[in-house]
Amino acid sequence: MKISNRVQNMSLSPIRKLVPYADAAKAQGKKVYHLNIGQPDIETPTQFMDAIREYDAKIIAYGNSKGEPKLIKAIQKYYAEKGMNYDLADIYITNGGSEALILTVMTLCDPEDEIMVFEPFYANYNSFAKEFGAKMNPVPTSVENGYHLPSKEEIVAHITPNTRCILLTNPGNPTGVVYTPEEQDMLVEICNEHDIVLIADEVYREFVYDGAYRSFGTIPEIADHLVIVDSVSKRYSACGARIGCVICKNKDFNGGIMKACQTRLCVPAVEQIGAAALYETPTSYLDDVNKEYKKRRDTIAAALAKLPGVKASDPKGAFYVMVSLPVDDAEKFAIWMLTEFDINGETTMFAPGNGFYSTPGMGVNECRMAYVLKSEDLEKAIYILGEGLKKYPGYTLK
Amino acid sequence: MKISNRVQNMSLSPIRKLVPYADAAKAQGKKVYHLNIGQPDIETPTQFMDAIREYDAKIIAYGNSKGEPKLIKAIQKYYAEKGMNYDLADIYITNGGSEALILTVMTLCDPEDEIMVFEPFYANYNSFAKEFGAKMNPVPTSVENGYHLPSKEEIVAHITPNTRCILLTNPGNPTGVVYTPEEQDMLVEICNEHDIVLIADEVYREFVYDGAYRSFGTIPEIADHLVIVDSVSKRYSACGARIGCVICKNKDFNGGIMKACQTRLCVPAVEQIGAAALYETPTSYLDDVNKEYKKRRDTIAAALAKLPGVKASDPKGAFYVMVSLPVDDAEKFAIWMLTEFDINGETTMFAPGNGFYSTPGMGVNECRMAYVLKSEDLEKAIYILGEGLKKYPGYTLK
Repeated sequence: MKISNRVQNMSLSPIRKLVPYADAAKAQGKKVYHLNIGQPDIETPTQFMDAIREYDAKIIAYGNSKGEPKLIKAIQKYYAEKGMNYDLADIYITNGGSEALILTVMTLCDPEDEIMVFEPFYANYNSFAKEFGAKMNPVPTSVENGYHLPSKEEIVAHITPNTRCILLTNPGNPTGVVYTPEEQDMLVEICNEHDIVLIADEVYREFVYDGAYRSFGTIPEIADHLVIVDSVSKRYSACGARIGCVICKNKDFNGGIMKACQTRLCVPAVEQIGAAALYETPTSYLDDVNKEYKKRRDTIAAALAKLPGVKASDPKGAFYVMVSLPVDDAEKFAIWMLTEFDINGETTMFAPGNGFYSTPGMGVNECRMAYVLKSEDLEKAIYILGEGLKKYPGYTLK
Repeated sequence: MKISNRVQNMSLSPIRKLVPYADAAKAQGKKVYHLNIGQPDIETPTQFMDAIREYDAKIIAYGNSKGEPKLIKAIQKYYAEKGMNYDLADIYITNGGSEALILTVMTLCDPEDEIMVFEPFYANYNSFAKEFGAKMNPVPTSVENGYHLPSKEEIVAHITPNTRCILLTNPGNPTGVVYTPEEQDMLVEICNEHDIVLIADEVYREFVYDGAYRSFGTIPEIADHLVIVDSVSKRYSACGARIGCVICKNKDFNGGIMKACQTRLCVPAVEQIGAAALYETPTSYLDDVNKEYKKRRDTIAAALAKLPGVKASDPKGAFYVMVSLPVDDAEKFAIWMLTEFDINGETTMFAPGNGFYSTPGMGVNECRMAYVLKSEDLEKAIYILGEGLKKYPGYTLK
């Protein structure tokens, strides 16, 4: 059967493609430390299932295409408490942050339109572009300057007549970079001067470790060119709920995304009930989680610093670190770690880095690690990685 | 802000676009009989919420991109009991039948590829094609021959080198047609002879009133060219759960749709737990529901037959009837019924018919009605419709 060129050209997710190797390792009795996927081990607030257990609708009926009013109001309140005032009409509930991005790209980009990204970026951005025939327009950043943005001139030089939007994650996945107010102001200027839409994926907003966080939603100058993507997945450790949202004040965009929302009728009813309750979680929950991740960040940074030839980003937010490894090919190394190596029956899994680039040949010896495990597990996982490096046939420091 | 041409060209759903008029009518205290949307008034089996209430995961975590094994096994068993044997690897869980169709079109069609449909068809098929730049290739059918298929020659004459698939709903939405075994065999021949994929949307499979139902999944000759789309929405009156699936034996297709599934990571965890339990619902539930809909079918058919100038399809399955009205424009009439007309504070809402066609100008005086209300409500709704017709300024029998 002939499959569309679009899907043929899609890569399997670098975060998930090695799962069959991990499953095989586990079937042989190996323990695998999963640094490949941003699946926190933090418990979901009990409010989620408590609200769902109390839900007593006799008919699980279709809902509004733009989401349940109760959840939309809860999100409006959460934003208002952060000084961002949105109308109920500005908020669209989606099947996770992923669908929020899919519907946003659908609404903005025709085939051949370009999405500007700062490389490396969240791997599935490649798929969202391919889905709609849009092109990635990657602007390089590097570990040497902490994955911060290049100059305005350099960014503007990448803009073409087809550049429709800039898509970024802040705090960053996979790098953990948090953009400075100066960088944010520069992006606001660029978007306004070139009529480009800024899609700000801010799902890691609550995970910032070394200072305050400034949402693009608090910058009035960008309001008419800004689409915020958000999700309960990471914030409340509810990745499986698949509840996200798109927030925008621009009426043209909102009219468009409403049509996009209608193509899939509505978002699951029960999970929306749970998600609305999550927004009632006391802020102390988020404070505690933040402290825990900061500790983990410090742990993994210190553990990685001990390994010769390993260069890691210095994450200020989110829970990922981008790491350059002294190996020929990080994907081969990842497979080797799962199939050929263990210490006392334990091994470490991570996501190969090349999937976080769209420029061919980039990221081959890099990987992304999610520090979503307890500190003692992280220490063990990185120790195992270090021992594996030394034994790996493609180790380049030999 | 410039919205993509794709979304600009999408129509609002004919099933949902008049909801603001209905909301305004209700705000004025009017009662609206909703024949516009296939939202059954039947209670969801209690198994759904019972299973969810017992779910005690501490972390609502990411699941497999292809769905929860428990749900996949439940679906495999349901099909096996109907004589259709699928491997677990052949079944992909989706966010409702809508996403099942979206991911299927994404996997099969590049821009300019054609999707053959039998007109009238389920309105959102237009959007699924537009989403990916595919073209609709409509083959007309008509109320005069009960919306059955034209001859093989006529269908084959519509095939072009770009025809990638035939997309149909059987039993039919919006017509209620159930294809005969001869029609099915003809489609199987056409697909095999022309290397065309048959996408069989069989979500109404359990709603057949005048004889047996034959799934395309029971025809071995089509197995390698067949994609079945299914859903719990209508079968178990759980439209808001948004749990559907794609079933296919072709390995190329399965490799492709797995990539499509990974773009949105996974389907909500909690609703999958409930859906797995739905498949354990005793068949007596489906038998009772079937009897109830048959009664409603007979009720609405008899009520419509009394109205002069009204021509209705003779539905053998699903719970829709396509109706030709003696009016200038069914959409104008629908709005007029909501804004200008009532009998003792009650009025009737239905879906304008033109949205169920892709050929411009077709269906202007038609509408789709969903007989998802109790028989006494249906009788009242059609009575109100008949009285409205006579008063409507665009009534053509005057």
